[in-house]
Amino acid sequence: MFKGIYTPIVTPFNEKEEIDYDRMKHNLEKWGKTDLDGIVVLGSNGEFVYLTTEEKLTLAKFVIDNFNKNKKVIAGASAESVLETIFLCEKYAELGADAVLVLPPHYFKGAMKEDVLYKYFIDVAEASSIPVMLYNMPGNTGINLSSNLISKLSKHPNIVGIKDTSGNIVQLSEIVRDTDDDFAVFAGNAGYLLPALSVGARGATLAVANILPDECCKLVKLFNEGKMDEARELQKRLLEPNFTVTGRFGVPALKYALDLLGYQGGYPRRPLLPLSEDKKRIVEEVLKNYGVL
Amino acid sequence: MFKGIYTPIVTPFNEKEEIDYDRMKHNLEKWGKTDLDGIVVLGSNGEFVYLTTEEKLTLAKFVIDNFNKNKKVIAGASAESVLETIFLCEKYAELGADAVLVLPPHYFKGAMKEDVLYKYFIDVAEASSIPVMLYNMPGNTGINLSSNLISKLSKHPNIVGIKDTSGNIVQLSEIVRDTDDDFAVFAGNAGYLLPALSVGARGATLAVANILPDECCKLVKLFNEGKMDEARELQKRLLEPNFTVTGRFGVPALKYALDLLGYQGGYPRRPLLPLSEDKKRIVEEVLKNYGVL
Amino acid sequence: MFKGIYTPIVTPFNEKEEIDYDRMKHNLEKWGKTDLDGIVVLGSNGEFVYLTTEEKLTLAKFVIDNFNKNKKVIAGASAESVLETIFLCEKYAELGADAVLVLPPHYFKGAMKEDVLYKYFIDVAEASSIPVMLYNMPGNTGINLSSNLISKLSKHPNIVGIKDTSGNIVQLSEIVRDTDDDFAVFAGNAGYLLPALSVGARGATLAVANILPDECCKLVKLFNEGKMDEARELQKRLLEPNFTVTGRFGVPALKYALDLLGYQGGYPRRPLLPLSEDKKRIVEEVLKNYGVL
Amino acid sequence: MFKGIYTPIVTPFNEKEEIDYDRMKHNLEKWGKTDLDGIVVLGSNGEFVYLTTEEKLTLAKFVIDNFNKNKKVIAGASAESVLETIFLCEKYAELGADAVLVLPPHYFKGAMKEDVLYKYFIDVAEASSIPVMLYNMPGNTGINLSSNLISKLSKHPNIVGIKDTSGNIVQLSEIVRDTDDDFAVFAGNAGYLLPALSVGARGATLAVANILPDECCKLVKLFNEGKMDEARELQKRLLEPNFTVTGRFGVPALKYALDLLGYQGGYPRRPLLPLSEDKKRIVEEVLKNYGVL
Repeated sequence: MFKGIYTPIVTPFNEKEEIDYDRMKHNLEKWGKTDLDGIVVLGSNGEFVYLTTEEKLTLAKFVIDNFNKNKKVIAGASAESVLETIFLCEKYAELGADAVLVLPPHYFKGAMKEDVLYKYFIDVAEASSIPVMLYNMPGNTGINLSSNLISKLSKHPNIVGIKDTSGNIVQLSEIVRDTDDDFAVFAGNAGYLLPALSVGARGATLAVANILPDECCKLVKLFNEGKMDEARELQKRLLEPNFTVTGRFGVPALKYALDLLGYQGGYPRRPLLPLSEDKKRIVEEVLKNYGVL
Repeated sequence: MFKGIYTPIVTPFNEKEEIDYDRMKHNLEKWGKTDLDGIVVLGSNGEFVYLTTEEKLTLAKFVIDNFNKNKKVIAGASAESVLETIFLCEKYAELGADAVLVLPPHYFKGAMKEDVLYKYFIDVAEASSIPVMLYNMPGNTGINLSSNLISKLSKHPNIVGIKDTSGNIVQLSEIVRDTDDDFAVFAGNAGYLLPALSVGARGATLAVANILPDECCKLVKLFNEGKMDEARELQKRLLEPNFTVTGRFGVPALKYALDLLGYQGGYPRRPLLPLSEDKKRIVEEVLKNYGVL
Repeated sequence: MFKGIYTPIVTPFNEKEEIDYDRMKHNLEKWGKTDLDGIVVLGSNGEFVYLTTEEKLTLAKFVIDNFNKNKKVIAGASAESVLETIFLCEKYAELGADAVLVLPPHYFKGAMKEDVLYKYFIDVAEASSIPVMLYNMPGNTGINLSSNLISKLSKHPNIVGIKDTSGNIVQLSEIVRDTDDDFAVFAGNAGYLLPALSVGARGATLAVANILPDECCKLVKLFNEGKMDEARELQKRLLEPNFTVTGRFGVPALKYALDLLGYQGGYPRRPLLPLSEDKKRIVEEVLKNYGVL
Repeated sequence: MFKGIYTPIVTPFNEKEEIDYDRMKHNLEKWGKTDLDGIVVLGSNGEFVYLTTEEKLTLAKFVIDNFNKNKKVIAGASAESVLETIFLCEKYAELGADAVLVLPPHYFKGAMKEDVLYKYFIDVAEASSIPVMLYNMPGNTGINLSSNLISKLSKHPNIVGIKDTSGNIVQLSEIVRDTDDDFAVFAGNAGYLLPALSVGARGATLAVANILPDECCKLVKLFNEGKMDEARELQKRLLEPNFTVTGRFGVPALKYALDLLGYQGGYPRRPLLPLSEDKKRIVEEVLKNYGVL
């Protein structure tokens, strides 16, 4: 069911740090006309950790209502407690989301043993009326979901896939090997999109697809057509813009790049700060090198 | 102003995972009669990450209203965004808290450079009408506040101390060296209470003081009286119960130990689960070995 | 010049922990008849850290003299000091090795900044009369050679390639992107052989190729012929035996697997110990599952 | 038997990277007149990893023959293989060393499980005719010897102590708690000398004692006399010079500081490089601040 390229959309704020729905609408219209298979609202790049529960619900509703109905919307429902996660799943289901994306709880890192994580996800999957996609993001959470745990969780009928942002390509290969064909294994960063496809990933959720959605989709197409040399060249070219808006400078760079490319990134919310002038110059240069500016 | 032993009190839940105010009241009365200098409500051991904003405010009010007026109450105000942290600071101030304890934001670990963290804490300190105590807890956050950053932050008149749970005794020594005498350097775990005192810590906020408050206070007293041999023996004895209710089994063990010792720990909230039977036996044995059961 | 599949051959010891040259000769003859492009003597799997300098020289001579002259022999020349590394390079050159494989020095981890590592490798490359292949193995050394450092080192005419065992497929992609076409980028573990090929690696040095040399070569062939589906299936099947003789049980398992498959693995040298009986059963089962036992 | 302050002496090289025995003799005479209880030759600060086996034996003999006979000499016997470690133990015993200091083998980090490490140290202790002191140095080896493992090893009559350079003061406290009174628990860095004494350490082996031997001894004396305030002040003052010649700039800074203070540090061996001019200025300033320059 879930496949292809998704992007975890940014949440534009205005100068007062309020959600800027005009900017969001503008972006949704543009993304809606691309080749993207869908979007993730309230993912990491959506700064979900900086939004109140009320803001999350309002934003999810707005995005679902204003996005291309032929594409899918997955909503980030991650919260530390089972109760809050289930609450968000239910609200997003009512609003019409196609699925939820759920991180492992991670504050008490030492206590999050595999049996605790297993029960967490099963509790959520049981309660959610829409499908659950697991979200492995050790860089932010400090916790890795092992291929063994994911394989066990994949047996639950309401757990339908995983976005793996660990960057561990062996682990991703093991997940493909150990899960059924209809379990959606998604790469979580464009830095290893082609390697992930080469070992059987069915799709990807990519921050850089906020700004280069059709390029990401094209890489999948080239791979599916067996054009490996062209796919490799595109993968190579994507490394730099991808790194610049993710690991290197993060969300503020992604927002500034959106501004440069006809989208409206807007301000980040504190503690994140707008990109400094020297970093803006670097982002501009990277996009020029890529040929889109 | 802040010195001596504090404990980050647990939040008892009932079987339905609701905050159990009767149990909380019972505990507050008992802690109020100990030698503790104060308590921290909504700290890590208070499972603050599992509470909604509304629950936090109700709980903070209840604790402040029902605790011994001669002792201090510090409230945990940690949130990822500056706006939410400031909101909590203001509410806790209105409720009568003596200070707030604030973690660094940590979800976007790669983006939390020292200048970003500096601005975060300064923004919060500027806005808060009650004193701010920094909270360094790399085991849970994945981020360490360096002695250099802490020293710079300590210059702000509304940043009055730090609870350092890094376990890095050299760093703690550097903080003492690099901050003014009225900056409250607190150890964050009883495993190194005596070493911390030996290098100049002025107090400590200790999970194990939930169950052994007067023992922790006694160690400070022995140290202050120069009775180093007795202090060392007590420190040695505290290692095992301390480890059992923190690094080894965490909050569920702390709650079970409270149940055993005349307090009312109650249930944890999911994903945390009540202690298994075999672990309960271990907790019992540890407390028997210590001589309190 | 360097491409295709190499294997870092094990060093068989007898029960007295002496190098067993009869076993070695037997293995060299078998490997010589496979599709392997070459071997690495005195690599990690050769337990080079457990050999004296004298043993290294005797062993290197024996291997070079007794291996198929149509295939290449790379010798592991890693030592902590520049002097010792250069000494080994010179000796191996005299013995007829085709190249040397060199780890970064790593005991003083804090001191091994990028400028120190750069100078180390340049000093070695300047002094060595045979080509130098870099060896990135952070799992054992605790030090990662960044793509930036490798790119700079690749400009030196006597540094001809890298074996990257970091498992970081993005880094490997960056190395391919940032080095000339004649710089040999090799994967260092079969767990990501296909992903590495997909982004442009020219070869691989694989522990599992000790026991399954032709299977590893076949994967390269399938990839080169554009048979991606078959390549993916083979990659998937290789994961389990590869993990079993590397990350899971290491050298003792690799030696036992050799014993089972007609080679002569012999004993490891202490502190490594022969595989326990229960682990032997697991190795047997894995090889049966693969269909080679 | 072993107690008080030891220093792991540096190995001076001349400009050609040869061991400089004249400089060494000069230093041995000076250290011999200090309050030091003993020295460690061929420890980490002695750059043992950069010496050949032959050099190690010649150097050990020279140091033992030329050092104050009323003080002890411990020789670093760390090697990756059991055979080589035992070989060194025997040679050092013949030369008259009082004990050997032994790191865990650490190249195959994944394979160095606690049972493997246990057997390694027992094998060495059984074979060595002089006492073995364990050496825990996770910063360089990537491996921590747990308090549980150390406690088990301490039961062997020929394992007489541990130098713990982990910096984990809780672990050091546990080791004191779990070993007999005659087991020598030594701190491994002056950054936590007073905290270590406060929980029962019996001595310390300190890099900074190369340059400030009597200051380190004085801290122990102050502590033993119950002069905690003075001890704390001295500990505070030692932090900066200690950090500068260890974690901050390492061996090259230690050698330069020796040069400044009447000792003869000489050159380091590559890959270590002599201190740059700007770092030399910092070392000078730190020593001036301390009042010894």
